[in-house]
Amino acid sequence: MTTAPRTLSLGAFVQGAGGHIAGWRHPEAYAAGQLDFAFHAELARVLERGRFDALFIADVAALWGHQMDALSRSGRAEHFEPLTLLSALSTVTEHIGLVATATTTYNEPFHVARKFASLDHLSHGRAGWNIVTSVVPLEAANFGRSEHLEHELRYRRADEFVEVVRALWDSFADGSLLRDKASGSYYDPAGLRPPHHQGEHFTVRGPLNISRPPQGHPVLFQAGSSQTGMAFGARHGEVLFTLQADLAGAQAFYAGVKKQVAAAGRNPDHVLIWPILFPLVGGTEEEARRKVAELDELVHDDVARRLVQDNIGDLDLTEYPLDGPVPDIPDSNRSKSRRDLLLGLARQENLTIRQLALRISGGATVAGTPEQIADHLELWFTERGADGFNVSFPYLPGPAVDFVDQVVPLLRKRGLVHETYEGSTFRENLGLPRPASQEVAA
Amino acid sequence: MTTAPRTLSLGAFVQGAGGHIAGWRHPEAYAAGQLDFAFHAELARVLERGRFDALFIADVAALWGHQMDALSRSGRAEHFEPLTLLSALSTVTEHIGLVATATTTYNEPFHVARKFASLDHLSHGRAGWNIVTSVVPLEAANFGRSEHLEHELRYRRADEFVEVVRALWDSFADGSLLRDKASGSYYDPAGLRPPHHQGEHFTVRGPLNISRPPQGHPVLFQAGSSQTGMAFGARHGEVLFTLQADLAGAQAFYAGVKKQVAAAGRNPDHVLIWPILFPLVGGTEEEARRKVAELDELVHDDVARRLVQDNIGDLDLTEYPLDGPVPDIPDSNRSKSRRDLLLGLARQENLTIRQLALRISGGATVAGTPEQIADHLELWFTERGADGFNVSFPYLPGPAVDFVDQVVPLLRKRGLVHETYEGSTFRENLGLPRPASQEVAA
Ligand SMILES: Cc1cc2nc3c(=O)[nH]c(=O)nc-3n(C[C@H](O)[C@H](O)[C@H](O)COP(=O)(O)O)c2cc1C
Ligand SMILES: Cc1cc2nc3c(=O)[nH]c(=O)nc-3n(C[C@H](O)[C@H](O)[C@H](O)COP(=O)(O)O)c2cc1C
Repeated sequence: MTTAPRTLSLGAFVQGAGGHIAGWRHPEAYAAGQLDFAFHAELARVLERGRFDALFIADVAALWGHQMDALSRSGRAEHFEPLTLLSALSTVTEHIGLVATATTTYNEPFHVARKFASLDHLSHGRAGWNIVTSVVPLEAANFGRSEHLEHELRYRRADEFVEVVRALWDSFADGSLLRDKASGSYYDPAGLRPPHHQGEHFTVRGPLNISRPPQGHPVLFQAGSSQTGMAFGARHGEVLFTLQADLAGAQAFYAGVKKQVAAAGRNPDHVLIWPILFPLVGGTEEEARRKVAELDELVHDDVARRLVQDNIGDLDLTEYPLDGPVPDIPDSNRSKSRRDLLLGLARQENLTIRQLALRISGGATVAGTPEQIADHLELWFTERGADGFNVSFPYLPGPAVDFVDQVVPLLRKRGLVHETYEGSTFRENLGLPRPASQEVAA
Repeated sequence: MTTAPRTLSLGAFVQGAGGHIAGWRHPEAYAAGQLDFAFHAELARVLERGRFDALFIADVAALWGHQMDALSRSGRAEHFEPLTLLSALSTVTEHIGLVATATTTYNEPFHVARKFASLDHLSHGRAGWNIVTSVVPLEAANFGRSEHLEHELRYRRADEFVEVVRALWDSFADGSLLRDKASGSYYDPAGLRPPHHQGEHFTVRGPLNISRPPQGHPVLFQAGSSQTGMAFGARHGEVLFTLQADLAGAQAFYAGVKKQVAAAGRNPDHVLIWPILFPLVGGTEEEARRKVAELDELVHDDVARRLVQDNIGDLDLTEYPLDGPVPDIPDSNRSKSRRDLLLGLARQENLTIRQLALRISGGATVAGTPEQIADHLELWFTERGADGFNVSFPYLPGPAVDFVDQVVPLLRKRGLVHETYEGSTFRENLGLPRPASQEVAA
């Protein structure tokens, strides 16, 4: 086990016009930014100035939610497709990791392996893949299914999917591209190993038609919350996202996952835990809280209702009063862990539908002065609730600029984060090892 | 019917390290360019200097060919995935159309619609889609099939695929993205029309999660050669690639297709025919011919044999002498038109296997002085064998630079090509109309 000093890693969680569902309505938000490449380029440069390790694009292959009228108010109706956006961003950035979400439930391993390998080559070793199995119901309907595969089956498919993708990335051994003009040998045939995979869900001959990614494999991200999802993360993930309400919960998750990682025969130091962080920086704590309240004001009633409904189950809430209690919700094929978490929260704190909505609107959960926010990060990091954070800004670009200019300098002063990018790849910057290549047959 | 004066359009056909199978071995070729983004960026800038309308990336979802030893010598073993590469190129170019190949046989309409829409937004209206149904046998094996769908069925699936993709692009009516902060209305629900498609091959609810592409629809490219393929092109294509050995053949194709287009109820002026052109510029005709001979010398015996085999059928040629006649080849599920063309050519001219290989190696077919090459383009254009050309350079970047600096100025002087990019989108530069948006329901 390594003994290198830990350093705190940072990723920016970019979801549409901002993490807060009504963030786009904020007077300072750039509402049209979602489809403006110049805006994303500027944001990426701000994040590099703050030495963020990663820019992560959340994604679903559908509109984000499915009640069209409410959705029309949510600002999540349009966004660039992540792999195309990040490919474009690779040309205007130098160091930051570029993490795209792609689902294993509605894709083919060959396409996914190839696109991420291509992004890794374009970016000289900065690609990451957030592996998801799809939770938004509308995605199924865009791919000929009435609902998602059952939860366990989704993860079985994901297991095999990842196995095939890794084998495809390894199609060419490191160093087997010779490009020797004199002999006419472009690559060494001994270094080519097509997977010839035949499994329960996939039959893929290979090889991939692109040489091994600079990082060996792009960095694998994952965010399982259920038992099955966490076990999958422990087997495959290198950076694990998680949503945690308090430090105790984060510590339990952290300890539990690291143990599972070790049990799966992997080095726990090579799996980073990144709870999601919703910061909002103010000059004073009071100002920060006022900003949060302002954002909450912007959440339309229809949006509040749908936010709860889309996150916890299949019950139509239209007839329920927004300021009344959250009703019982029947079981469904949706993410159980999230539903249980939210329903538990609502019961425990006796929340109304609106109050629960505001808890999941993506509003700031850590609002305060730069010092207070830095303290929060330091505490969670040193107390082993986090190795890093997946930072979501309520709207863009202002709060991201504030975080970079006001919070990051404090983290630097405290020696928690690296001052500069030391590695030449995303993986190196995160302190993760490069997967070994197959040996070239003699 | 329009009466605007015709102008000649130009696309660059970029396939790996160059169009000639052994081009990468040329002393001046940049053999490592395929996975070097800076190289592609520089090439794109050269093409924009020459006011090329399009940069087209050919593609198959597999290694290009399948006998690994021969392939190891062909320089077609690795290349960027087209949509990721073109997204990156969109940031370093301003005017040129960016055309990616994607197969309808091994993709889902939702993913394809979305990625091209995303590229169209990233590039401010410069995306094009080369619709293919897959011909390389190895592709099937990467997607769980032992061979491709039967030829007619592939095109039936392609028909439905394109229909769904168009409907997805039209999910949002033009102008329905309001982003009105005051009312909280991000889009007008009346402008949203999910396709709710249910057909033989696909069930896709929609809507697409990105607003209507700047061009309405990205420009549709196609290259059918069979009766079925040409009929498909006449229904859907806006720029049609074709491989033609001589002017008479090109004229027959041109006239036939335009007639089919009209019969399909479309305006023939809105469908451009682009034969492929393999030019090689020399100071004198003799020098140009010497360059061709030099390239042919670089084709390794194994590559020559596989080139013939991979293009005409399933017969193993290993035991046949390279300098002997081309044997009879049994029927297969491969592109029949191409096999018949090549076998016909071999019989007619009594070609050996090696000679046939050199005809399809991608070597220059129009080698000469800049004037001679300009004459060729002018003749095919004015005699209605072509509306434009899909120009393949044997290796890169030299021959592309020569073409831009020596041939294009002559085309300008003769008034055949536009001096500058007049339109603000790819479609406008090609003189193609923007597909109408659905009306917003009142
Ligand atoms: C920070 C974070 C980001 C996530 N991003 C996505 C995403 O972009 N797309 C997606 O479909 N799911 C996303 N998810 C959902 C997870 O992939 C996963 O489905 C969810 O945590 C439920 O866990 P389970 O699959 O173990 O039930 C995200 C979850 C978290 C906590
Ligand atoms: C100039 C040109 C470019 C082509 N590019 C591709 C390509 O990138 N990928 C592909 O799978 N097929 C490509 N094709 C093959 C065609 O899509 C088509 O399959 C072929 O012309 C056979 O016609 P058919 O489908 O009507 O039998 C190309 C053909 C031509 C003439």
